[in-house]
Formats: sequence, C-alpha cells, structure tokens
Amino acid sequence: VSNPVSFKAKYGPWALIAGASMGIGRAFSHSAAARGLNVVMLARGAELLEEIAAEVRAEHGVEVRALAADLADPHIGDVVAAATDDLEVGLFVYNATVAPAGRFIDVPLDVQLLSVAVNCATPVILCNLLAPAMAARGRGGIGLVSSTGGTQGSINFGTYNAGKAFEWILAETLWAELGPAGVDVATILVGPTSSPNYNAFKDTLDPALCNKPDSPLPLDRARARLMDPSTPQEVAEALYDQLGQGPVLFSRPTDGSIIADTLALPREEAVAVWRELQETSTHVPERQAR
Amino acid sequence: VSNPVSFKAKYGPWALIAGASMGIGRAFSHSAAARGLNVVMLARGAELLEEIAAEVRAEHGVEVRALAADLADPHIGDVVAAATDDLEVGLFVYNATVAPAGRFIDVPLDVQLLSVAVNCATPVILCNLLAPAMAARGRGGIGLVSSTGGTQGSINFGTYNAGKAFEWILAETLWAELGPAGVDVATILVGPTSSPNYNAFKDTLDPALCNKPDSPLPLDRARARLMDPSTPQEVAEALYDQLGQGPVLFSRPTDGSIIADTLALPREEAVAVWRELQETSTHVPERQAR
Repeated sequence: VSNPVSFKAKYGPWALIAGASMGIGRAFSHSAAARGLNVVMLARGAELLEEIAAEVRAEHGVEVRALAADLADPHIGDVVAAATDDLEVGLFVYNATVAPAGRFIDVPLDVQLLSVAVNCATPVILCNLLAPAMAARGRGGIGLVSSTGGTQGSINFGTYNAGKAFEWILAETLWAELGPAGVDVATILVGPTSSPNYNAFKDTLDPALCNKPDSPLPLDRARARLMDPSTPQEVAEALYDQLGQGPVLFSRPTDGSIIADTLALPREEAVAVWRELQETSTHVPERQAR
Repeated sequence: VSNPVSFKAKYGPWALIAGASMGIGRAFSHSAAARGLNVVMLARGAELLEEIAAEVRAEHGVEVRALAADLADPHIGDVVAAATDDLEVGLFVYNATVAPAGRFIDVPLDVQLLSVAVNCATPVILCNLLAPAMAARGRGGIGLVSSTGGTQGSINFGTYNAGKAFEWILAETLWAELGPAGVDVATILVGPTSSPNYNAFKDTLDPALCNKPDSPLPLDRARARLMDPSTPQEVAEALYDQLGQGPVLFSRPTDGSIIADTLALPREEAVAVWRELQETSTHVPERQAR
C-alpha cells in the first residue's frame, strides 16, 4: 500500500464493496480495510459473508458491516440505502457478476436475465444511489469491475460479455461527467485471475499454444496470459492504485496492450481473436460466481 | 433493392420489426415489405402503429400484422410468442430504444431502468425467442440496431450509450455463434439520422466546427457528419444490403472509419472525441423515442 493516508482522505471513511465475499471481492474488501477504510460488504450468502467480514475486521481493525442481499433484486437500491444511510460512503466498488456459460441459444432465459439484472441494472441503481452524494462532497471513487471479455464478442459468454461492455462504457461516461466534480470513476477490465474454478480450467489448456508472451499478435499474448493469472489481491490493488488515472484500468500492462491491439482490428478479426482464445481449451469454464 | 428474390428466400417469409412505427423502424418495415417479406410490426402506441401498418400493407401488397405491446414489459417474450406462433419469422430487427438525455446523476432512476429494460433485457428475450428456430431451419437474419455512441462513453447519454454497447457486443457473439448455423447476425452502429428532433438539433450546430469531412481527425469527421444525417431509409437499406457481410455494419462508410479511428485511440482520448462531439451544440437533443 503506497499511500494509505491520502487514499483514506480521498475515498474514506467508508467503502461499499458489492460482491464482497469471494475471490476479487474479498480482496477488494481486505485491501480497502488495509488502506484504513471501514467497509460495508455486500453479498448474497449470509454465512460466508459473515465469515469473511469477521476476517477483514480482525485483520485490519476497521469497522465492517456485512449486508446480505440479492444483487438481482430490483429493490436493491432501497435495501442498500436503508443499511448505509448513517454512513459516508466515499468508495464504491461494483464487483458482483453473473456469468452464464454456453452458447446463447442454450442458456436458459431466466439465467440470462439474471445476468442483465446484476451486470447492467444494479450498477445503474447503485451508482444512482451513491454518486450524487460523492459529487456534492466533491470527492469519492467508483470502480466498476468489467472484463477484457467485454470489449468484443466471442463464443460461450454472449450476455455476460455484453453486460461487461455495458459496465465499461457506463464507467467511461461517469468518468467524464463526475471527474470534474472530484469523483474518480474507472472500470477495471479484469483478465485471467486465479480462483479454484480458474485453476481447474488452466489445467485444460494446451501449453504449446500459450508460450508466446512477446508475440506481436494479441491472440498469442492473450493465450500466454491464460497461463499466468493475476491474483485477486493484484486486481484489487491495481484498481485502488490507479483510481483517478483514467477511465479504463487493467491489472497488468499486458492486458492493456492486448485490448488496445484488439480494438484496433476490424471487428470480425477482434471477435476471431476472442473466439480462438476460448478455443485454447476444449473445456468451457464455469463462471457462475455471483 | 438489388435482389429481392434472394433476400426473401434467405430471410422470409416474415419479418418482425421491434420499434416499427417511427423513423428508422418505419423504414425497416417498408424496406422489408419492398423486398417481399410479410411484416409483424411491433411498437407501443396502437394508433400510430395501425396507421403505419396500413401504409406498409397498401404500398407493398404484403401481409402486415400490427402488434401493440410495451417493449419494457418483462413478459414481452410471451406476448410476441403468442402473436407470432403461427408464423415463420426469418428476419428479426430490434430497433426499439429508450435514450434518456442528461447527466447520469440528473436522470431519474426509473427512466434509466426503462432504458436498461428496452436496450438490454428485451433484445435478449426476443433473440432467445426467435434465434433457436432460425438456427434449426439453417437460415435467418437478426439485426440489432445500435449506435456509433455505443463504442465509447461521452457525456449526457450514460445509460443509453452503455445499452448500445450491450447490443453491439451481444450481436458480435451471436454473429460468431449463429453464423455457422446459417443465421446472419449483425449490429448496425447508426450515426446521425434525420428526424424532426434531429433536424431541430442540427440547427443548433456551429457550421464552422462542422466543415472538415476529410480531416484525419475522427472528431472533425464526426462533426461534419452531424451536418449530413442519413435518411431512415438509407439506414434500413444499409442493414438489409449488408446483412451477412460481418458483425458490425454502418449506414455510411465514413461512420465505419470514424469508429475504427476512435477505437484505435487510448480510451481517455476516445471519450474526449465523443464529449467534444456532444459539445458541438450547446443543446442536448431529445432522444426519448421508444
């Protein structure tokens, strides 16, 4: 943690982390607490949430409030407002997601709509709830967690990738509109990140396809990146360290270069890069975390 | 119309146009009928819809079915299924949109969520309804109408631009997944298009900013494009003529070059181009069409 005092002055006293109890969200909670912020941790499953909230409280000596709620609930704004209306939330991280895997026409509609609710509607609801007070105070931070998969279509994650595009472009507008009011907004386009599911997926990759980290082709670099996932803590620190430095952040410089090179391609080629990246493994990863 | 026979063979016998009675949607209905397809016209306001449906029927001698329904209704899939289950829908055009104007923190939440429903949830619902039968038949076409505003954030249209990004990236995945099954999917990223609202907006532009159509800077070209809007018919013909030629289509080659050049920029510069484009006029256009 490079400068916890100024981070706390800019983004304290309370952080709200949505999707807080697992993987990157757990790391966002720990890292905010390590930087001296109190943390409201929001996630669906009460038992795990309470356990991780106790862990964050014990490790960092800050106040932690655990809020078990369903991020697909259309009334989530009222739930969060009621649970936080006595707090000054200076940092909001939206990390919750629903990532249905499979061809679009094979994924049940209710799961697709759950994904739209969590990836599109709820970030709008919670930014609408929290951003006006930040703008009125003239300081604050908002991080929307998106994915490198959000900048082009592919196969297997149609509605998920579209939802990540929604968060990416929404964050860019919030960056442009709220930056002049002193509120730092960014999206982080997360690349491969270690988790129990990810590590099982990684074992299905063909190493011979993933050994060209310095290739000029973004597909080769993206394949090499699959073998070298970020840790959740690396992602959390990357967002916090770079908040205020631009609308679109990455946890590794190589992710930024892969995405820049892919966005510069004709769209059919950009999609082909990501389709071939999916085809590096014959196994469709389970990404149902919520 | 270059080859109506093959268009009808590929995409007939019925087209379903969602958001059918005004502007581009009316043109999509007329142009599909001119190419020999029967048309289900779907829009919210029954009176105008019946009037335009009668116009299409009389002018082109095809069958036209008018379906008045609310595209924000979460049960819209059941409504459309019940109204079309005796028809073979070979072409689906999703043109409906809700475009709230204003800074994100100033737009009422209910309008933002209406925008998410119409721009994100409903295209997922209707593609889920219609694509499986097309894939099973091994032919069909799907066009999702997005916007050049969807490929970067800006100011004034936060949730709208994010929803257009959703449609863009969803269409790319559907293109990759359904193309091998014989179903042509594309998004058209629509640029400035004439309408009564647009024409009033155009009168507020500074002509001295809009006179560099051949500049190497995408901002200059985008500003010049504001003065020379497409007609709705031009947009409709562009989608139909190019369906099957790639995932992302434009109504003018210059739009494609503006977007390609903008996507190749660092993201803060891409957002700046679109913010400055907004600032070509001091007047925020009303784009509440639905």
